[in-house]
Amino acid sequence: MNCETQNKKPDVCEPLEKVGVKNLRTLVKVGSKDNIYKFVPRIEITVDLPAEKKGAHMSRLIESISEIAQQETFERHDTFEILERNILDQLEKRHPYTRGEINIDTELVVNKKTPVTKKPTHETHDIGVKLVKDHGKFRKTLKVKVLGNTVCPHAMQNTGKPHIQRAIAEIEIECDYNNKISLEQIINVAEKSFSSEVYTLLKTEDENSVVERMYANPRFVEDVTRAILKGCSRFKGCKIKARTTAQESIHRHDVIAEGFICT
Amino acid sequence: MNCETQNKKPDVCEPLEKVGVKNLRTLVKVGSKDNIYKFVPRIEITVDLPAEKKGAHMSRLIESISEIAQQETFERHDTFEILERNILDQLEKRHPYTRGEINIDTELVVNKKTPVTKKPTHETHDIGVKLVKDHGKFRKTLKVKVLGNTVCPHAMQNTGKPHIQRAIAEIEIECDYNNKISLEQIINVAEKSFSSEVYTLLKTEDENSVVERMYANPRFVEDVTRAILKGCSRFKGCKIKARTTAQESIHRHDVIAEGFICT
Amino acid sequence: MNCETQNKKPDVCEPLEKVGVKNLRTLVKVGSKDNIYKFVPRIEITVDLPAEKKGAHMSRLIESISEIAQQETFERHDTFEILERNILDQLEKRHPYTRGEINIDTELVVNKKTPVTKKPTHETHDIGVKLVKDHGKFRKTLKVKVLGNTVCPHAMQNTGKPHIQRAIAEIEIECDYNNKISLEQIINVAEKSFSSEVYTLLKTEDENSVVERMYANPRFVEDVTRAILKGCSRFKGCKIKARTTAQESIHRHDVIAEGFICT
Amino acid sequence: MNCETQNKKPDVCEPLEKVGVKNLRTLVKVGSKDNIYKFVPRIEITVDLPAEKKGAHMSRLIESISEIAQQETFERHDTFEILERNILDQLEKRHPYTRGEINIDTELVVNKKTPVTKKPTHETHDIGVKLVKDHGKFRKTLKVKVLGNTVCPHAMQNTGKPHIQRAIAEIEIECDYNNKISLEQIINVAEKSFSSEVYTLLKTEDENSVVERMYANPRFVEDVTRAILKGCSRFKGCKIKARTTAQESIHRHDVIAEGFICT
Repeated sequence: MNCETQNKKPDVCEPLEKVGVKNLRTLVKVGSKDNIYKFVPRIEITVDLPAEKKGAHMSRLIESISEIAQQETFERHDTFEILERNILDQLEKRHPYTRGEINIDTELVVNKKTPVTKKPTHETHDIGVKLVKDHGKFRKTLKVKVLGNTVCPHAMQNTGKPHIQRAIAEIEIECDYNNKISLEQIINVAEKSFSSEVYTLLKTEDENSVVERMYANPRFVEDVTRAILKGCSRFKGCKIKARTTAQESIHRHDVIAEGFICT
Repeated sequence: MNCETQNKKPDVCEPLEKVGVKNLRTLVKVGSKDNIYKFVPRIEITVDLPAEKKGAHMSRLIESISEIAQQETFERHDTFEILERNILDQLEKRHPYTRGEINIDTELVVNKKTPVTKKPTHETHDIGVKLVKDHGKFRKTLKVKVLGNTVCPHAMQNTGKPHIQRAIAEIEIECDYNNKISLEQIINVAEKSFSSEVYTLLKTEDENSVVERMYANPRFVEDVTRAILKGCSRFKGCKIKARTTAQESIHRHDVIAEGFICT
Repeated sequence: MNCETQNKKPDVCEPLEKVGVKNLRTLVKVGSKDNIYKFVPRIEITVDLPAEKKGAHMSRLIESISEIAQQETFERHDTFEILERNILDQLEKRHPYTRGEINIDTELVVNKKTPVTKKPTHETHDIGVKLVKDHGKFRKTLKVKVLGNTVCPHAMQNTGKPHIQRAIAEIEIECDYNNKISLEQIINVAEKSFSSEVYTLLKTEDENSVVERMYANPRFVEDVTRAILKGCSRFKGCKIKARTTAQESIHRHDVIAEGFICT
Repeated sequence: MNCETQNKKPDVCEPLEKVGVKNLRTLVKVGSKDNIYKFVPRIEITVDLPAEKKGAHMSRLIESISEIAQQETFERHDTFEILERNILDQLEKRHPYTRGEINIDTELVVNKKTPVTKKPTHETHDIGVKLVKDHGKFRKTLKVKVLGNTVCPHAMQNTGKPHIQRAIAEIEIECDYNNKISLEQIINVAEKSFSSEVYTLLKTEDENSVVERMYANPRFVEDVTRAILKGCSRFKGCKIKARTTAQESIHRHDVIAEGFICT
């Protein structure tokens, strides 16, 4: 007979905040019955562990994910947070916890048109959705990482010849589970905050239009972060963190600007 | 004449918590006059930015580092935190701030002897030291990342044949600038918390000794994290965070255990 | 009127082997009409550039991908190599080349059952498929990266207590476009070559079975690489490279074994 | 008594090209007696393994490094390749091989002056040196990875407003052990091949000078790679590979240009 070592008393009786599985890559389905989107995200799922328990039952965390995320017939998961809530609820039946947390990191593809020639283009963004169930209450964090550029206002003013570089905006918004903010809305705020948004496909006419916009709109990373915070201020009841990193074209290092607001 | 664009009023008047430079890799000297240790760490240095200032003067952040970190004749920097304090003090003269922060990530090489044959061996650990000066008050965070292993107590008990894997302990200790904890002490706590510590060099007799120790000492990641928290509890006046990650040998994913204590 | 700078004579007239786009992440469809699999891989696509041409028309590389990879009604792409051949053929119409190359890196999810309790489990592997069209002739390279473990035969023999660790097998098979080897077959060879294959889900009975298999089957990385080469020797007309990396549980460094065969 | 499992006959008798240790991070000393430079590189060291031997003696590879790289009194190692030759010679006494290979990856700090204000600045580059001893004959590969920028000539011509981005040049030069090329010379070729070289420190006057140079010197990645190949053509008896990657400021993906010459 197998012994449940995990339920024994540990040598050191100290409660642990997060015990579980990380870098799990498995097939997940999101969407309604007619429009299922399958993807292979990277998942972290954890529970808290009371002082007197030696270990968590890790396989039950895995099973809660597969039972919910891969089924065909279950209640639909329209969004990442619904999927995560269903997993955390399923997990609670299999493995009691006071605080459970799940984080899904994947990418989101947004359909756009190029600015002048109006050709279709797909834009891929890194996104993440974290859900915490603490004493029965849900709270989520929406995360996006969006590429754009900065055109240096200092060099623009002094020489008319600005240095320009790729920049990365990272936004994290913590809010109530029921808050209706979408990842696409947050991505949109990020894109509008750069000197210009960027595109996977650009024909020459499109490229000319993008560079015109860039030169008309010089911004420091500080300006980008502030524009993001302002753009996100319409999302109410949120803790918002924005960080912009510019991969400087005249330096080997990066420059960063980070700010927070509560709305 | 060059205009100081950075001092202009920004379009969005929002204070920013952290503005500065990241992924800076430059030569740094630590140590007393007779025993100088040169290395090339990765540095992040930031200041806060008031609502009415458009940008930080990034080059002054760089200069504060080079003026302090590369000089031959300056007051010696015995430790990373003294070096960082000198840089933040120098920076304040060049670029006023309310909150300045510097983080240095590098590696530390510790001399050891192999357990049985007593051959010399060098053990390299990733470490980081962060220093914050906020309203004139310093507070530091010491970080280590140490490799070891876990031997599964569950499989050990059920079959006598445990699965074993490389594990990584990450410890962060936030405390007063004057707290005398050394990085070597924290590394030592981590190494003693695994099923066994590991070595760069092991002759067959040493290897036999290490595996004997491993099998005598089966531990979950939960056990390792708790042992670290207990081992660190003698460091007083600290916020301590410990996270252990095991690169499971029977799974594709990792398992983690994370805990916090205040001492 | 826009000038085609790319067609100008360059300052240095030297032919270039590979010019193009890297780290492109876009939506791709593979499969037949009834069973379409959508995914977001990382793509590199390049052409050679003659000595007298200043630059490649990068946007035409992007368009060739989107015209083929995202269409609904086009000839179906049953496999990655058919998709890639269609892209390289499309590219040749838009941008002449002597040698064109495309590489798609993504992950493959394989359905399995756990070894004893026979529960369904999904196993995710990193894979890549590269196709080169050189002077009109196609040649492909199939790549898999598979996780497993090694159980040290040396420690097993000396003490009966082997150290065990996660190991990674990387296999690259270069062969004719028409060669019928599947990625799943190569993954299968890798899995059978470890001390044991690994699973995302393992209940206690499954775990016991896996560790029994591991201890019955001690292997160095050298043994794993040789078992892979032997297992792949049935794929005829191929250049096969195998590399196994073990994340040693008793050391901070990894050990590797690499071999090549032509079949 | 401990058995030498490594010397047994393997189940599959296949010769292996490379067996050894990877991601070893240990203290290394280079330089003459009066000017010793200590650093902590990442090392890979391997030997070939005959068909009838089960395994390599990994600890002997480690010992050969520590015996040579850390000693105080040994024959000096003026350069990475002398150090590596001494290690491979030492290894041959401890572990016979037909083909031995060692690769050291680390960073090199170059002292420069800023272009106008002539302030001292340190520039850090990733470098690597690989040495192979095959049938008693040495051959080395020198590798550098250098940051700079590209200014788009196409946008410059069409709108006078070029997009600009950080670019990375990677150069690998394979040549005889006795070839006197220095890493600094190769780094210098890379820096001169960009639209402009970049600096860790730039005061406003320096920055203005750098951007003037950039706008006077628009280049595609193709131009940069060709300029590198031309600049390296004075190194005789070499196989030279150059690859430039631009982190496009108007796209999410990178563009690359790769070329080879033999001199």
